[in-house]
Amino acid sequence: MNFVEAIIRKRDGGKLSRAQLDRFALGAGAGELPPEQLAAMLMAICIRGMDADETRWLTESMIRSGESWQLGAARPDAVDKHSTGGVGDTVSLVFAPLLAAVGVPVAMMAGRGLGHSQGTVDKLDAVPGFRMDWSRDEALGLIDRVGVAMLAQTKRIAQADRVLYALRDVTGTVLSLPLIVASIMSKKLAMGAATLVLDVKCGRGAFRHTPAEALELARALLELGRSMGVRCQAILTDMNQPLGPALGTACEVREALAVLGGGGSRELREVTMALARSALELAGRDAATAGVQLAQAIDDGSALAAWERLVEAHGGDPDPDLLARPRQVREVAAPRSGFITGVAAADLGWVAVDLGAGRRSRDEAIDHGAGLLIRARIGDRVEAGQPLGTILIGERVVDAEAAERRVRDAFEIGEERVEAPPLILGSADTLAL
Amino acid sequence: MNFVEAIIRKRDGGKLSRAQLDRFALGAGAGELPPEQLAAMLMAICIRGMDADETRWLTESMIRSGESWQLGAARPDAVDKHSTGGVGDTVSLVFAPLLAAVGVPVAMMAGRGLGHSQGTVDKLDAVPGFRMDWSRDEALGLIDRVGVAMLAQTKRIAQADRVLYALRDVTGTVLSLPLIVASIMSKKLAMGAATLVLDVKCGRGAFRHTPAEALELARALLELGRSMGVRCQAILTDMNQPLGPALGTACEVREALAVLGGGGSRELREVTMALARSALELAGRDAATAGVQLAQAIDDGSALAAWERLVEAHGGDPDPDLLARPRQVREVAAPRSGFITGVAAADLGWVAVDLGAGRRSRDEAIDHGAGLLIRARIGDRVEAGQPLGTILIGERVVDAEAAERRVRDAFEIGEERVEAPPLILGSADTLAL
Repeated sequence: MNFVEAIIRKRDGGKLSRAQLDRFALGAGAGELPPEQLAAMLMAICIRGMDADETRWLTESMIRSGESWQLGAARPDAVDKHSTGGVGDTVSLVFAPLLAAVGVPVAMMAGRGLGHSQGTVDKLDAVPGFRMDWSRDEALGLIDRVGVAMLAQTKRIAQADRVLYALRDVTGTVLSLPLIVASIMSKKLAMGAATLVLDVKCGRGAFRHTPAEALELARALLELGRSMGVRCQAILTDMNQPLGPALGTACEVREALAVLGGGGSRELREVTMALARSALELAGRDAATAGVQLAQAIDDGSALAAWERLVEAHGGDPDPDLLARPRQVREVAAPRSGFITGVAAADLGWVAVDLGAGRRSRDEAIDHGAGLLIRARIGDRVEAGQPLGTILIGERVVDAEAAERRVRDAFEIGEERVEAPPLILGSADTLAL
Repeated sequence: MNFVEAIIRKRDGGKLSRAQLDRFALGAGAGELPPEQLAAMLMAICIRGMDADETRWLTESMIRSGESWQLGAARPDAVDKHSTGGVGDTVSLVFAPLLAAVGVPVAMMAGRGLGHSQGTVDKLDAVPGFRMDWSRDEALGLIDRVGVAMLAQTKRIAQADRVLYALRDVTGTVLSLPLIVASIMSKKLAMGAATLVLDVKCGRGAFRHTPAEALELARALLELGRSMGVRCQAILTDMNQPLGPALGTACEVREALAVLGGGGSRELREVTMALARSALELAGRDAATAGVQLAQAIDDGSALAAWERLVEAHGGDPDPDLLARPRQVREVAAPRSGFITGVAAADLGWVAVDLGAGRRSRDEAIDHGAGLLIRARIGDRVEAGQPLGTILIGERVVDAEAAERRVRDAFEIGEERVEAPPLILGSADTLAL
């Protein structure tokens, strides 16, 4: 096949065939198509779009471009969870042990930090000894022993996605709905997720800003997943401000421990509970009692115990005193009194990255003591001098004054109280906008 | 500047700034931007288009990406001619000596064969000793001595065009009007053409099929050229069938000699005359007598003498007996009687290439004895067995039967006589469609 013909078909707004998308994904994964042809096709798809068939065909081909683990074939009840990316999104660290505590197995594939979002792999790296590079057999063993396998996405899973993602980043083709959907689902399906809960973020700190945009993404993900036999639900949650108060790695683990212990962030608990209820429903549990069961697992200490078991099973030491601490902390004070009317979540995410909680380039090391704690939320009344946030300075030498200024600037303070945006917009299956 | 921002602006249908187009062209020419970013931008431009400002800015930047010869600054009357590409298009070989014979200097930059079209550089290569790799000073000397400098486009002229052209070829972005216009004009303007005659081909054998498409291209070329101070005219000519009878290198030189001597193809003479009249007008000559002057230059032998002088000045030997001859010829007979209703010009061009008159890959050598002679034109009555064409077989080992079949298949023979399409549609400035 002459791949230029495929490019031209999409350039002119036509529909690609299964064979053409196969050539695209397998050629990308195997390094057989040159970057200029891949980039031209990505741009044509980005502008012209793809329909549901094309998106499914591309996803199927991307899956075949790498290893297939078929975890769901071996453990059909194991739940995976995916978030479309936000700031202060500590949900996975609470979700996994919480479900294990109520007897629903979890097989979660996680990624590293990307842009201004911290990644679950990086957060669990903050736990001394924690490993995520398990083989398929080891992963099945973890699920059987402690109810949870946490896995780092490897290069061998959906190889085409790795190649295409790197290209999309430098060619202005990241924000394409069908490419986003294929990227997310190819990785989940290559692992063999049979049950999947999707947390689709919506707001200024997410890449889908409006509820309608987020709903469009959620529905495209569900349509694709279901057409490929995955039981899945999607919940739209707010990302107009950081979800939890902690932005970083060790500090997010600490925040997760607080929520698992019954305290911590109300918002983080609420979103995690909603996603966990969704997982229980998909697992066939009674929806009416799911919330009670989950709350009880926190109250009676079994969620925290599940965390300790899963950490140990993954080679880690669950002693919280071993988590890295900041070398220095610095409060950021409100410059004046008023009401918080907006928070630039992405800006705060970037401050945390620059402090050392994320990577500015692919090979940079994470500074686990670094991060940010957010102290004020939209709708809060603050007085001048009262803390808006706390800068956690780790080992890296940073410009603390610049960080302080950027944190301060991320908070909009007005005269009039505004309503906090709803934390959970609803399930994509029932939400009417 | 972050070039991804520029890509995204064009992706979303915005207008690029002069600085962004500068970065694009200079980055391409200097190899500073990776092929995937160039390809993404090319596809975005191909789908979203560019306005006249953007096209001019891109052209200016492409000029600055390589050497600038400014021939027009030194010899403002020297005329260049450009054809948008056809089959049997021997015009340049007649045009240059004909204008020299009537005292209008010619500075023509020519290219090698591309796709199914034979290039002027390849054709002049068939003349033993003919050189086209002159320096600027040498070119000025040639103009002064014999009225003509024939120059091969070098890699150093409009370097960005060379990079972008190679990318367009493999990324499905060749057929973009602003990219075509910028590619053509950047090369002409880098040479410093001050007077330019454009032959815009129109029909099945050209890349602009309808008169409206060809007119759109012609007007875009004129608008750009004039906005940059070039005196130019464009004539739309037919390419629904080969213009002249010869498709190849040595055989086209022979055909040019026949026309310069007063015989040869009527169609080739007519189109060359129209373009030459246009050049005389641009040179300020009286339009009413231009045709007479040109015809006289042919009739009195001065055109042929100018050819001999220009060949010698370019290091060549004008003795026509030295031109390569086919090792073998093979007539292609009409399979049945009837009227020629259509000719697949591009297919015939490809047959000539495969016989050895062109390159199937960048490094292939030209077989100067090879080519095709076309014996029938649209509207002609042919009897079964009468020749449609003659296959000229040179040194290369070829599948002559396949060539014969392909030539036969290129002629459509019907029951009813059809009108031959008009050879010259008109000047782009006055043509009303």
